[in-house]
This record gives sequence, structure tokens and C-alpha cells, in this order.
Amino acid sequence: MSGRDVPIRQRALRSHNLAVVLRHVADRRGGVSRAAIAAHSGLTKATVSAIVDELVAGGLVSFSASADNGGVGRPAPRVTLAGARPVGLGMEINVDYVAACVLDLSGAVRHRQVFDSPPLAPAAAVAALASLAENACAAAQSEGLTIARGVVAVPGLVEGTTVHLAPNLDWHEVTLPASLAGIDLSFGNEANLAALGELHATGLPSFLYVSGEIGIGAGIVFHHQILPGTRGWAGELGHVTVDPDGRACRCGSQGCLEQYAGKHAMRSVEEAASALGVALSSAVNLLDLPTVVLGGHLAPLAPLVDAELRGRVLTAKWAPPTIRASTLGSDAAIIGAARTVTQAIIDDPAAYLTSIRA
Amino acid sequence: MSGRDVPIRQRALRSHNLAVVLRHVADRRGGVSRAAIAAHSGLTKATVSAIVDELVAGGLVSFSASADNGGVGRPAPRVTLAGARPVGLGMEINVDYVAACVLDLSGAVRHRQVFDSPPLAPAAAVAALASLAENACAAAQSEGLTIARGVVAVPGLVEGTTVHLAPNLDWHEVTLPASLAGIDLSFGNEANLAALGELHATGLPSFLYVSGEIGIGAGIVFHHQILPGTRGWAGELGHVTVDPDGRACRCGSQGCLEQYAGKHAMRSVEEAASALGVALSSAVNLLDLPTVVLGGHLAPLAPLVDAELRGRVLTAKWAPPTIRASTLGSDAAIIGAARTVTQAIIDDPAAYLTSIRA
Repeated sequence: MSGRDVPIRQRALRSHNLAVVLRHVADRRGGVSRAAIAAHSGLTKATVSAIVDELVAGGLVSFSASADNGGVGRPAPRVTLAGARPVGLGMEINVDYVAACVLDLSGAVRHRQVFDSPPLAPAAAVAALASLAENACAAAQSEGLTIARGVVAVPGLVEGTTVHLAPNLDWHEVTLPASLAGIDLSFGNEANLAALGELHATGLPSFLYVSGEIGIGAGIVFHHQILPGTRGWAGELGHVTVDPDGRACRCGSQGCLEQYAGKHAMRSVEEAASALGVALSSAVNLLDLPTVVLGGHLAPLAPLVDAELRGRVLTAKWAPPTIRASTLGSDAAIIGAARTVTQAIIDDPAAYLTSIRA
Repeated sequence: MSGRDVPIRQRALRSHNLAVVLRHVADRRGGVSRAAIAAHSGLTKATVSAIVDELVAGGLVSFSASADNGGVGRPAPRVTLAGARPVGLGMEINVDYVAACVLDLSGAVRHRQVFDSPPLAPAAAVAALASLAENACAAAQSEGLTIARGVVAVPGLVEGTTVHLAPNLDWHEVTLPASLAGIDLSFGNEANLAALGELHATGLPSFLYVSGEIGIGAGIVFHHQILPGTRGWAGELGHVTVDPDGRACRCGSQGCLEQYAGKHAMRSVEEAASALGVALSSAVNLLDLPTVVLGGHLAPLAPLVDAELRGRVLTAKWAPPTIRASTLGSDAAIIGAARTVTQAIIDDPAAYLTSIRA
């Protein structure tokens, strides 16, 4: 082995092993002994102990006493995700509210704030986000927590810090700040982040999440991962054509779902459910997803939509898709946004541990 | 390190390193020196030499002389994918032909056979596949090649060896044999496999491939990988609704794309292109794919479809999707099917090397 290769390979191995151990701890909500981590990972007990010590020092895991060891010997301490230290900030700008929450590594919501608000112009939205972020920081500090990073959900087409289009906020090519209140921010599509929130809450591995507001968006989840598309713009269900010669849409097309089932566009529940059923059938025919989760004002349409799906989905005869209402309601996007932060720490603890030493 | 852990970890490391080296060789069509593999992988030169020797012994790579070494010293031999030894068999049952091809690890077609044929009943199709497989075996043997495995493309819903439904063959719940002519077979959807063939031919990373026959199917490719859906049934573009109250489809629904743009259903090119444009716009809005590849009789519709996409895709203003004709035509599915076999060997050479020693 040449001298040059050694540090590169050892760093990669350490990162990998840190992530393996932390992910195993994250998967076992009740905690897990170091011996069990060693048996699961194939790592030696000495290696596991060293890794756990490093994770404890970084505030990512902590020990809790084991209640029961089957009566033999001293109970082994269990390793659990730390409720303390690094937490994620999730925020949302939407058409009738702005909101924020703080999520810890164990998935618990440690702070939540929601303001009703009319659609905000960009400058007012940034001021609202700054205020939400400051409040979240203060709340976190008072509990001994540190916000690692923030993610902001926006109902539109986002690329980096630019919102190309958020039609229902009337935003066009708006650039947002990369940090507020000392917290680094990134931005994402509201429906995609809400889908992550539902994933967090339900554990469903694969589903289509439909965000029902004035606009309609969707988030696609396969095997516990968001399918973002090539530019993060997947899931524009609201602009699926349900009637090629139908009503004009503000996007410039005709017969978009949003013009039949959007919160303000709905004329009758039957028409909205039928249009939603047509668009969802097309989505399920293309994506082969077993479950559709309906959010917002669309949730009560589930039974009517179900009938449409059974008639229009080619594979419904073998495996009809299941329709259910959202679990988190309008908190889905802020929880998904905050989870993006905590999940990144769990997936790559070495990067986080390096960042806090810097 | 406990005794029990050692062999498990060493086996995993060996598999990993074999795959890293073979994939690097596969990515460099012109061959690559062992020193360059070491520099790329971070492995020592001694480790790389041992791995290359093992891959040569298994017939997966071979050495070719380097033409030029910059004039300094003896030219280093270059490692290339072996044209010899393990090859993949791809076969297809379709509505008006049956076909087979043999692909080697370097991606070259070493044998190809196509028979025109009316839609075959299951027993006749199995007999045709057996004959194609025997001919492919004989052709492979005469060139010193060994067929590792075969994959068969079927225009329908496939699960294991069962075809639940192939509407245009009039097949319902047909079970196919798991081997023929001594070759282990698996089965897949024709459009998905044709998409893999286009991926192989074009190198486009992300696209929607549309298979235009009597039925219409699609294969979704993201970042060089097929998106199969949760049961392998994704891409049923032919059953996307383009007119909710439109023509009855044999699937039981109404207004399916297949009834407007299928080879036998087409009434006018304008109507077919408009329907295809509506369905593709919905697909691009949902999937955020930059490119659409049209196969079969749909390829000439590209310019008309383009106009429809520009009007109906929300993000077309920033990044209009590109439409192009299929490169491989009706060979796409057999090449994609055969590539499934060769790619599996490249991705996990350890499993293949174990299998030939058994």
C-alpha cells in the first residue's frame, strides 16, 4: 500500500463506518447496545466503541440505561439518538401562512411557529423568515440545541436560491438570501418537502403525495427517497392536462388539473374529484406507485377519486392503488424541510463532525 | 477484530474492489493501464494487479498493447473489456416479430436474428424463443463465447416468469419457462428494456423512451438507470388519459393515448401527434425529464409533438424538453435485454466469477 493512498482510504472508511453506526442507531428508536451494533455491522466491538465515543462527543448519540438484560450480568447501556445538540430548521412560505419548526435527530418537533398571512411580496417574505429563524434560534438555545442548517419550502419552481416561478405568490425570478439570523439556508419545492414530511410520519416506502392548496403540486417517493427529477422540478401534477381543450391556466396551457381542483378554482366536488382522478390515474400509470396521499382540501375527495383510479389504472385489477389522507396536514412541508437537515447529518456524520470542529 | 468478522469483511471488500476496477475498465473503451486504475481507485498497484489477473482468468478483461507511452520507457499494457467469454442473450416477443441478439462485455453485437411473425400464442412463442436461443448458443460457441444468461422482452405487464397481461398478443396470466436451451432466462417489459438499449446506444443520462407499436409503452431513465416503479410496471404511457370521455380502450378505461396514437388506432397524424403531445406533456410535468426519445411509427411525429410540449410543459420556458427519434429502432429491446446481462456482470464480477467456478 503506497503512502499516498493510506489517509484517503482511512478517511473514507471512517466516514462509512460512522454513517453505518449512526444509521443503525437511528433505525432503532428504543436504542441498541454496542454489542448489537457490532453484530449488525460486522465491525469489531473496539471499533464500534471508538465510533460511538466520537458520536457522543459530537452530540449525535447518547447512552441510556438498559431496562432489562434478560437477568444475566450487568445491563448493557443502550445507544440512542441524542435529543440534544444538532437540530434542523424547516420553514415555509405559502399563500396563506408562513411557518417554521425545529426537529431533533430523534425526529421530535422541539419548536413550531405558524403565522397566518396573505401572499407576501419577496421582501416581506424574507423579513418574515428572518423573524421565524430568530425565534427558532432562541427557542433552540434555551433547550441547549444548535440549529445546524435550515431549509425553506416554497410553492414553486426553485433552483438554488432562485425561485423561477411561484404563480400563486406572483413571484417571478426572485432571489432569496443564502443565510438568515446566522443560519445557512437552502430552498426546495413545497410539495417535495411535504412528501418527505409524510415519509417521516408514516414510514410508507413509496407513494405520491398531493399538496392541495390554491395550486396543486406533488412529491414522488420511491423506496424512502424523493424523486426530484433532473432539476428538482418533478411532481407538477397541477399542470397535468385533464381536458386538452379545457379551461385556460395561468401557466399558458389549457385544461390543467389546477383549474378544476385547485382550492379557489373548484366549481363542484364531483368535477374536482373526477379531474383529480384522471390526473392521478395518469401519474400511477406512469410511476407504478402503490399509494396516493392527499393533502389539504383534497383529502375528503379520496372515495370519489378511488373509483376513478380503479377504472383508469391499467394494473388496478392486480393491485389497486390505496388512497389516504395526509397525516401531518399543513405541517408536512416544514417537518420535511427540517428532516432534510437531520437526515443529512445521519447519512454523513463525518461531514457534520468536521464542520463543528472548524 | 474478531475471527468471525474477518472473512465477511474481506469478501465484501474483494467484491467491491473487483467491481470498482471492472467498471473503470468498462468506462474507458480504449483501455486503461494498471497504474491509471490504481490512481483512479486509490488501491495499491499490487492490489490492482492481483484483481486484473483474476478478471483476466475469468475472461472478463484482457490486455492490449499500448500504442504510445509518450516516448518514455516500455509502453504499459492496457486493460480492456474482453470481447470473448461471457456474453448476454437478449430476446423479444412482439406483435409482428420475434428476435434475439448476443452482446459482449464491450457492447458489441456478436449475433442477431429476427423473424417476422404474426402474434404468437404462448406455446408457439416459447418454441420460437427456444429456436432463437439454440441458434444464439451455436453462434456464440463458434466464436468461443459463453452465454451467461438471457433476458426476454415482452410487450406487457411482467412479474417474475408470469405475463399478467400482454393485450396486443392477447395473453392473460401466461407463465413462461425459466430456462431454454440450457440458458437461464428472466423476463421484462419491452419498453423498459428498449429504453436500456437506447441508453446503451446514446449515453443520454435521463430521458423518456416511447415505444410505438400497436400498443404504446414507455421506459423512464434517470441518471443512467431505469425507473421500474415499485413492481416493474412504470411507464404505461399508452394508458395515460388524453380525453376523459374519449374512445373506449381495451383496458376498460376511456380516452387512453393508445386509442389515438397506436399503430392501428391512428386516424390522422395531427390527431395522433396532439394526443401524444398531451400525454408526453403530463409525463414531463410529472417527471422533469430533459429529453423524449420516440421509437417506431411515432418518430416522425417529433416536430408536431414539440409544439404541444412547448405549450403544455410548465418548465418549457426555462428548459424546453428535446425530442428525438430512437437510434436503434426495433433492435432497442433485444439490445437492452442483452445489456441487462452484461451490465450485471460488470456491476458484480465477483458473483459471476463464483458462478463459473461452481
